[in-house]
Amino acid sequence: MSQPVDPVDLTARLIRCPSVTPEEGGALVLLDKLLTDAGFTCTRVDRGGVSNLFARWGAKGNVKTFGFNGHTDVVPVGDAGAWTHDPFGGEIEDGILWGRGATDMKSGVAAFAAAAVDFVRETPPENGAVVLAITGDEEGDAIDGTTALLDWMAEQGERMSACLVGEPTCPETMGEMMKIGRRGSMNAKFVAQGVQGHSAYPHRAKNPVHAMARLCDRLASHVLDEGTDHFDASTLAVTGIDTGNPATNVIPSSCSAMVNIRFNDSHTGAGLSDWLRAMADQVAVETGVSFEVSIKISGESFLTPPGELSDLIGRVVQAETGVTPELSTSGGTSDARFVKDHCPVVEFGLVGKTMHKVDEQVPVEQIEQLKRIYRRILEGYFA
Amino acid sequence: MSQPVDPVDLTARLIRCPSVTPEEGGALVLLDKLLTDAGFTCTRVDRGGVSNLFARWGAKGNVKTFGFNGHTDVVPVGDAGAWTHDPFGGEIEDGILWGRGATDMKSGVAAFAAAAVDFVRETPPENGAVVLAITGDEEGDAIDGTTALLDWMAEQGERMSACLVGEPTCPETMGEMMKIGRRGSMNAKFVAQGVQGHSAYPHRAKNPVHAMARLCDRLASHVLDEGTDHFDASTLAVTGIDTGNPATNVIPSSCSAMVNIRFNDSHTGAGLSDWLRAMADQVAVETGVSFEVSIKISGESFLTPPGELSDLIGRVVQAETGVTPELSTSGGTSDARFVKDHCPVVEFGLVGKTMHKVDEQVPVEQIEQLKRIYRRILEGYFA
Repeated sequence: MSQPVDPVDLTARLIRCPSVTPEEGGALVLLDKLLTDAGFTCTRVDRGGVSNLFARWGAKGNVKTFGFNGHTDVVPVGDAGAWTHDPFGGEIEDGILWGRGATDMKSGVAAFAAAAVDFVRETPPENGAVVLAITGDEEGDAIDGTTALLDWMAEQGERMSACLVGEPTCPETMGEMMKIGRRGSMNAKFVAQGVQGHSAYPHRAKNPVHAMARLCDRLASHVLDEGTDHFDASTLAVTGIDTGNPATNVIPSSCSAMVNIRFNDSHTGAGLSDWLRAMADQVAVETGVSFEVSIKISGESFLTPPGELSDLIGRVVQAETGVTPELSTSGGTSDARFVKDHCPVVEFGLVGKTMHKVDEQVPVEQIEQLKRIYRRILEGYFA
Repeated sequence: MSQPVDPVDLTARLIRCPSVTPEEGGALVLLDKLLTDAGFTCTRVDRGGVSNLFARWGAKGNVKTFGFNGHTDVVPVGDAGAWTHDPFGGEIEDGILWGRGATDMKSGVAAFAAAAVDFVRETPPENGAVVLAITGDEEGDAIDGTTALLDWMAEQGERMSACLVGEPTCPETMGEMMKIGRRGSMNAKFVAQGVQGHSAYPHRAKNPVHAMARLCDRLASHVLDEGTDHFDASTLAVTGIDTGNPATNVIPSSCSAMVNIRFNDSHTGAGLSDWLRAMADQVAVETGVSFEVSIKISGESFLTPPGELSDLIGRVVQAETGVTPELSTSGGTSDARFVKDHCPVVEFGLVGKTMHKVDEQVPVEQIEQLKRIYRRILEGYFA
């Protein structure tokens, strides 16, 4: 009988792999070996210079297949001289494990890999499968990461009936929050094209700055919604208006603005794009200044409505930590936005306070607790 | 008996003096000699590195003292290679005199100097004086130019009872326009100070771009007035809004805007400054974003109401050119804005189409005509 996998040691070994996006750094090779030894079928699904690992225990296409999703790539070290511990050292001191990826999210990957290995070794489900979809491109463009894994799985007839993303989700205290959805995010760039002229004769010009001020005030003043059952109100921020005209006696010919929208499930990226273009068209009619509008939708909003999966996770987290996790849709974006097209997906992980910072660190007890939570989720799912 | 002064030759000789602001270039020395020889008392009134020339014929402080005002400094050549004639050559070809200052305004200075010299030699007034106040800093900061001359005149008990500024005033055809006033001009810079934050959490930030868009839309939408008896409506142009924020996921902490106002005699710079600050204060109350406001008043609006001086000039111009000049207050600013505090002032000169451009040029006939007009104005004034 094999020993249980130590998730703290596994995290430390993963931290010692310098896997700054898009470098694999040895992290996926290490996991491949561990999982293969435990009876998982492992496949490297590399695409576009990005390394990804797919691992399955149990029969392919099983209707009851629990999936874990996470990433081994990390953001750069930043100011290396400011770290008090080697960011790729994986040092443990007074119960704290230090290093880049300690919270985001080599600890999460180690916890679910350790939980999955122990689970299939010690209490293998009679009819079920466990899948790990681990990417090396979550912190980068995320074009050839989880998306590549999901594309490949669809081609191969691989599936998941539920998925847990192991990103850090707790703001301050272990157990306080899981994420059942995320707001959508989009950026719009407006370029107002007017007619240049002398400030002394504005009737001979068409001032693009005036048109842009009007458009931006209208966009900023508009209430997109009041929030929905599981989401806060959508927000719009004009993050910049720029003209670059040094001459106070010249009305410039153009002016640009950037707008960021975070939207809930009462909107779609397409619907908001139509609205933005209509608002620009209206100001164009009023002012005679035309607008070029370019829009990039980073992700649609999504929600896994509270139900079996979130209930299970909530029960387990409460039992392990004594804290009932909030079902949140706050925060930025994550790879859950890709997974949600395939199966119900919930995110739960440890406290993310030091992610992306100098001296990223995690209490080893939190990693052990996270492994226990993941293990109990597997047991509950297949019970 | 001396010969009449040839204003075309005098203009050409002045063009050959390279008097790009603040260089004197020999232009004032040349005029000093001409005027001294004709019995004028000449004084160089240099200040702050700028050369200026004051010349008087007749008794100091005479209640009937006609003044001419003008400048011999010129704007830079610009793209020297694009000129078809030497910009400092003063060449005449097919009745056209070429060079920097040909219209703005060495021709105007030459015409009034020639007219004044001939007048005092041939038909000296029994009781009266003629003053020429010529500056070398009209195209620059205009701090030590006409202002220095007027300051010095006040100290010395020198005066003018009426003044004609010889700037080019005709848009297309000789004689079609004189200027009896000018709009005021002012620039305001606004800096909105908010609180930086993440685009995903705008409620934790105070967005200065939103506040600036609102302020600028309100300023641009406001009708300052509908025009007055002698002035067009005042205008306001926001010439730029700038943020310099490259990150679409960051709400910046500040944002700036530039505003130019051209205002008629229904406003004062102080009144408009109060209005601008009040508008900013109102948006600050609404948004929680504060505004720094800095204002520079380039010149107040002024008007020499139609009367004796403009009537005289109108009659003479009509007689010489067959065109009745419009009494205009259009255009930018000129040194008349300083003179108006001392005596009634009107601007009349030739066609300014090529001023400040490559291949600045003037038909020699226009210079001769302008000299005849100035001479007849002197005769009419002292009749």
